[in-house]
Amino acid sequence: MTDASSDRRRRGLDRLRAINGTGGEQAVEKLRAISGDFADHVVDFIFGDIYSRPGLDLRSRQIATIAALAALGNCHPQLAVHIRGGLNVGLTQAEIIEILSQMAAYAGFPAAINALGVAASVFAQTEDGARG
Amino acid sequence: MTDASSDRRRRGLDRLRAINGTGGEQAVEKLRAISGDFADHVVDFIFGDIYSRPGLDLRSRQIATIAALAALGNCHPQLAVHIRGGLNVGLTQAEIIEILSQMAAYAGFPAAINALGVAASVFAQTEDGARG
Amino acid sequence: MTDASSDRRRRGLDRLRAINGTGGEQAVEKLRAISGDFADHVVDFIFGDIYSRPGLDLRSRQIATIAALAALGNCHPQLAVHIRGGLNVGLTQAEIIEILSQMAAYAGFPAAINALGVAASVFAQTEDGARG
Amino acid sequence: MTDASSDRRRRGLDRLRAINGTGGEQAVEKLRAISGDFADHVVDFIFGDIYSRPGLDLRSRQIATIAALAALGNCHPQLAVHIRGGLNVGLTQAEIIEILSQMAAYAGFPAAINALGVAASVFAQTEDGARG
Amino acid sequence: MTDASSDRRRRGLDRLRAINGTGGEQAVEKLRAISGDFADHVVDFIFGDIYSRPGLDLRSRQIATIAALAALGNCHPQLAVHIRGGLNVGLTQAEIIEILSQMAAYAGFPAAINALGVAASVFAQTEDGARG
Amino acid sequence: MTDASSDRRRRGLDRLRAINGTGGEQAVEKLRAISGDFADHVVDFIFGDIYSRPGLDLRSRQIATIAALAALGNCHPQLAVHIRGGLNVGLTQAEIIEILSQMAAYAGFPAAINALGVAASVFAQTEDGARG
Repeated sequence: MTDASSDRRRRGLDRLRAINGTGGEQAVEKLRAISGDFADHVVDFIFGDIYSRPGLDLRSRQIATIAALAALGNCHPQLAVHIRGGLNVGLTQAEIIEILSQMAAYAGFPAAINALGVAASVFAQTEDGARG
Repeated sequence: MTDASSDRRRRGLDRLRAINGTGGEQAVEKLRAISGDFADHVVDFIFGDIYSRPGLDLRSRQIATIAALAALGNCHPQLAVHIRGGLNVGLTQAEIIEILSQMAAYAGFPAAINALGVAASVFAQTEDGARG
Repeated sequence: MTDASSDRRRRGLDRLRAINGTGGEQAVEKLRAISGDFADHVVDFIFGDIYSRPGLDLRSRQIATIAALAALGNCHPQLAVHIRGGLNVGLTQAEIIEILSQMAAYAGFPAAINALGVAASVFAQTEDGARG
Repeated sequence: MTDASSDRRRRGLDRLRAINGTGGEQAVEKLRAISGDFADHVVDFIFGDIYSRPGLDLRSRQIATIAALAALGNCHPQLAVHIRGGLNVGLTQAEIIEILSQMAAYAGFPAAINALGVAASVFAQTEDGARG
Repeated sequence: MTDASSDRRRRGLDRLRAINGTGGEQAVEKLRAISGDFADHVVDFIFGDIYSRPGLDLRSRQIATIAALAALGNCHPQLAVHIRGGLNVGLTQAEIIEILSQMAAYAGFPAAINALGVAASVFAQTEDGARG
Repeated sequence: MTDASSDRRRRGLDRLRAINGTGGEQAVEKLRAISGDFADHVVDFIFGDIYSRPGLDLRSRQIATIAALAALGNCHPQLAVHIRGGLNVGLTQAEIIEILSQMAAYAGFPAAINALGVAASVFAQTEDGARG
């Protein structure tokens, strides 16, 4: 079903590393323990297909993903991974706080407040890492 | 409860016009027929408070809003207004299609497909208007 | 599976009529064309069990249902039926507008705006009926 | 980005036709007018990757999809396509009504009622077609 | 952007204390550590604007909020705060259990069951506090 | 309101035990501590009414419930109970992984990934139990 030597796989792994760093790779490896094929779909489809498309810069893509995950409000582990990814591709902490605050208008204050809590945890870990 | 002469109101109406144009004002006036105070909250809070905040450019704000409304999937009238708003602040049709396509990965294909349908209608109307 | 002579059925039909009037009965009959048993479950469980419980007055129950359906945002036909039900058990149009406006804070402005649009249609029909 | 001669594409188109028939192909062609690449992702990923996986029969896959779309409640066009697909792979109308009725317990009665309404429309069209 | 001496702020803080007590103030202060402006929006908009509106009593407002948060099902921290708020403005534990149970019909049993679990925790803490 | 000697109750308890085993009974007893009547509604309506209906086998019913709970994404305790129930009525671990993976296409990858995480925990506990 999947072919580790394919262009999609290589392109996907490159994108995954560029955006989500080692945290992204660890999330995929954790998933691989449950279903290797599904872990491959994540790499091949999300990163090899979608994120590798030209026509939208990675900063804009991360804004879209962070906003959507905050609005949905039921996938905080993925929101944390993509807030880290946003910092990796050049969003500032202040910009991420603006994106999440804006979600109060579209998905309600609870979704925005809980997403800001996720961001605060990610920022604290990032700073600990930088200091460590 | 509300004060039409306030800075928030003036700032909000300016932002509303800059982003959503006459379509945005019409949506607010339609709402005013149901509840004048609620129409004022839309202008004052969303546009006077949130969209007037410094720290994130309007193009980035529209990416976030379009992505969130597409992911939620149950507010297509607002998605249409904000896709038009995205075009107004400089997003291209191709970029909006990328944002909406990306939502397939985070909110599922049906949400993305239905949002692309909304975008197709908005683009058709925009082009009709430009030709008319 | 279902027993039309049961207490639940009788109690349920009484409650359904008291809250949702002929509109409620028509909705159940429409459903009966698809699945008679499911139509019975609606009467027996929602109205015969839940709405017949003591311990919360019908006005409060309608506030809860209207708020929940507005927040969910994807069941406008049922929201219309229950806004009519709210008027039937003593809520005023102004109170219903307050309930729906408040949802902007918890489920986002689009959910509240679309629910206010449903309410405006119901209020217009109710007034036409009163005049007609 | 996409390669029409690939195995995924061929396998995907075969599966799409087997499950969703001409209705499925028409939905993909409508999507192609907005974004050809996205239409290809639908065929390649959903049908070429996911639905082509061994380990779960198509009848079971359609039960899962119909249940999920009914529970989400905000993607009725796709629910209609997949109810037709369910009939195509051997589910009976009565079984589909059971699946949708069961959703009342997990996603609430409004989601189940609205999904049963979609099913009633599909069944009526299917019978018209059979008679026509 | 925000003005601590404004009427909205004073009115908002009064309402926040009346409804949510010290728990509400603590939640706002925790939010202030992430974004002071966003914490001000919560006080000014939700409590200074929405909850300060005449036309609906606080008991009814809390019924609406508790029902909506239970139905959405992805914001349990806020549900806990507002169940406490419901007790503060005069709802009984038995009435809150009725509101949450009723949500089974509209948002499904899992949403109702999980909300009842949140209520049980709040009630246990409240009783410990009363005894303590 | 409820009658422990009724056919629905007996039938419901039988079904609950057949599908969800002791885990299901424990979940109902935990609920009984909050509201005895609501615990009875779970047994009587979900298991005595819905799951006792003829016309769909239990394996198919569990596929539908597992898919819906995974797609909704905000009721992981219930998803865990019903994954166990799926194993009890004959679904294999591999089939459950297929059902959950397929949800990526309809509800997005985060919902599928988090549901696969729930399944991994259930499978690990089941195997520990089998070995223990």
